[in-house]
Amino acid sequence: MDYRFARRATLTQDSFITEIFKYLQDKEVISFSGGFPNPLTFPLTELQVSAQKVFLNEGSSVLQYATTNGDLDLRRFISERYHVRQSIEIPADQILITSGSQQALDYIGKVFLEPGDTILIEEPSYLGAIQTFTSYEVDIQTVKLEEDGIDLIDLEAKIIHHNPKLIYLIPSFQNPSGISYSQDKRKAVAKMLDKHNVILIEDDPYNELYYKGSVQQPISSYLKDKSLLLGSFSKTISPGMRVGWVCASIEVYKKLFTAKEASDLHSSSLDQRILVNYLIDNDYDEHLNALRTRYALQHQIMLDAIARYFPKEVKVYPSSGGMFVWLELPEGMSSVKLFYEAVKDKVVFVPGDPFYVNKKHANSLRLSFANETAERITEGIRRLGNLIQQSI
Amino acid sequence: MDYRFARRATLTQDSFITEIFKYLQDKEVISFSGGFPNPLTFPLTELQVSAQKVFLNEGSSVLQYATTNGDLDLRRFISERYHVRQSIEIPADQILITSGSQQALDYIGKVFLEPGDTILIEEPSYLGAIQTFTSYEVDIQTVKLEEDGIDLIDLEAKIIHHNPKLIYLIPSFQNPSGISYSQDKRKAVAKMLDKHNVILIEDDPYNELYYKGSVQQPISSYLKDKSLLLGSFSKTISPGMRVGWVCASIEVYKKLFTAKEASDLHSSSLDQRILVNYLIDNDYDEHLNALRTRYALQHQIMLDAIARYFPKEVKVYPSSGGMFVWLELPEGMSSVKLFYEAVKDKVVFVPGDPFYVNKKHANSLRLSFANETAERITEGIRRLGNLIQQSI
Repeated sequence: MDYRFARRATLTQDSFITEIFKYLQDKEVISFSGGFPNPLTFPLTELQVSAQKVFLNEGSSVLQYATTNGDLDLRRFISERYHVRQSIEIPADQILITSGSQQALDYIGKVFLEPGDTILIEEPSYLGAIQTFTSYEVDIQTVKLEEDGIDLIDLEAKIIHHNPKLIYLIPSFQNPSGISYSQDKRKAVAKMLDKHNVILIEDDPYNELYYKGSVQQPISSYLKDKSLLLGSFSKTISPGMRVGWVCASIEVYKKLFTAKEASDLHSSSLDQRILVNYLIDNDYDEHLNALRTRYALQHQIMLDAIARYFPKEVKVYPSSGGMFVWLELPEGMSSVKLFYEAVKDKVVFVPGDPFYVNKKHANSLRLSFANETAERITEGIRRLGNLIQQSI
Repeated sequence: MDYRFARRATLTQDSFITEIFKYLQDKEVISFSGGFPNPLTFPLTELQVSAQKVFLNEGSSVLQYATTNGDLDLRRFISERYHVRQSIEIPADQILITSGSQQALDYIGKVFLEPGDTILIEEPSYLGAIQTFTSYEVDIQTVKLEEDGIDLIDLEAKIIHHNPKLIYLIPSFQNPSGISYSQDKRKAVAKMLDKHNVILIEDDPYNELYYKGSVQQPISSYLKDKSLLLGSFSKTISPGMRVGWVCASIEVYKKLFTAKEASDLHSSSLDQRILVNYLIDNDYDEHLNALRTRYALQHQIMLDAIARYFPKEVKVYPSSGGMFVWLELPEGMSSVKLFYEAVKDKVVFVPGDPFYVNKKHANSLRLSFANETAERITEGIRRLGNLIQQSI
């Protein structure tokens, strides 16, 4: 059958993630690949209690169609938390619940992006965002990333040269690099975007996963109506329930609302009620502290193993939170090639390529330490170290 | 702030549904409006048991990221049911789980529709589909609907004149008209679409809601690779859980998969596991029989009340299933005007306008009998009858 597909459907390729999924069925495979949280961090018992409570107390209303905005109690919880934790005032009616923050990216694309528009992203950037923006047939331009955040000189040059509608940034524990923007850089970026009227998409799923210090101030808090702030419970509670959100100005909110209404009407009301009951009945901060302690330890174990087994020519990017370690192999060494060698040794990770726009055989790679035991982290790094040693 | 929105985001207006929602907070208001199933039909206790079982037996895996395809057991259940009930062979790997079948419409739009393409729909048609297709900036052309299905002469003329990529049909208990296609017409439509290479989107959420006879044969079963068949548990189990599906050829499936991956990764794995455990552990057909008995009774009560209270000039469309009664007021009478009068009498319904493309003050209207008691159905119809009498 000769289908007449839309052009946009011919642009996105099978993602590398699908390739990696193939190897994850084998329990012997040590996985540093997906951004999967550690299932031991899921509050399984508490969510079970919450689910029982919801079925008992709320009856059939939780199984009925619900409003597109999302559950009001949940939006109030998120609003209150921004107020208490970061002194940001975002009313509940400017928070739209989405099926993961990934879905917010899709709807932002739908509301803003025409074929041929330009969007700026960091280099490297989140592969899922690149995939989503690609489906909107836009010109994706990249801006250099330094150890304290985006390169301001490159940023202004790209803004002036490309006149982008949107810029997509992950300022806290960036995926894949692990980098966090300094406070000064956050303010400077806000000032520059404000001056040039570029709308910021600020993706902020990892902010609570700090191993020292505290939660960081979103760039959006300096920008008001010129920004969209995305959040998620996927990394902190459960990704399978698909609950994220986007905060937007009233005018943009209306457009995102209509986009969601025409797309899936609303996100699961059952999941939202289970989640908000969990959040209200339990100490979320205590849960987050336990999660941080676990990830901080696993992060340190991975760094220690890297120091022990990797040749000194491998560059390790600094990070103090999130779920990833970003590495650069010696120049000219392909991380895709390393991937296929590592698969034979039953270790997987994500090679750099999908985090770039049109880069092949990048020498960078992303390792997640979230989802493996201490022993398997050390063993996996040992195997990778051997392979890298052999290639130098 | 002067936002540079995409053109598509400026085309879809606030839907009339949002207008109706305003009145639904008031419990005194008798609602014949939304396509909300009756909450008494939700298998609340059984889903509660299923949720407990899922949390106890499956542990954290149900809270983790899952594959974009959807739960394999659930897809197998759907596949097996097509085999047993309708003798249609659809392998589980050609079924994609979506967040309601509404979401499948959005992804089909994403995969097929370019601005300026033509899509054919029935007149009248489902307002949510019109809203979704409008967001893809396409030319929506309508084909006349007769009491046994679409008008074949008008259909062929429209195909030849407009060269549509897609046609969107709801052949069983159509929303809003309640009409079902005869078996002969189904075959004739299939033959015509096959001949002209028009891809069919067959939306089939009401097929199980028959009050006599049995489940009807989808047009898709005569078309193979030239059709997409959509289904949903929203009308039969729970809309709040947002579980629907789309069946597609392998080539189209790949595109829909990528569209979903770039949009929300996957639908809630928790909800899918709760649902499939419910389906496996309970007698779904027994549940459906109880639901059919309830709706058949409420349907009859509404028809009886209409016969009693409505002037004979009001035309009632024939239907033997689904959730709706479709009416035509005397020529020239506006159902939107009637709506605002009825609101004062605390009765709401959906006026005809949103079911058409660019029609204002249509004389048709849709009444849902699903979500009210016998007494309130009769009382609501009495009030509407009075208002219509006064306007003649």
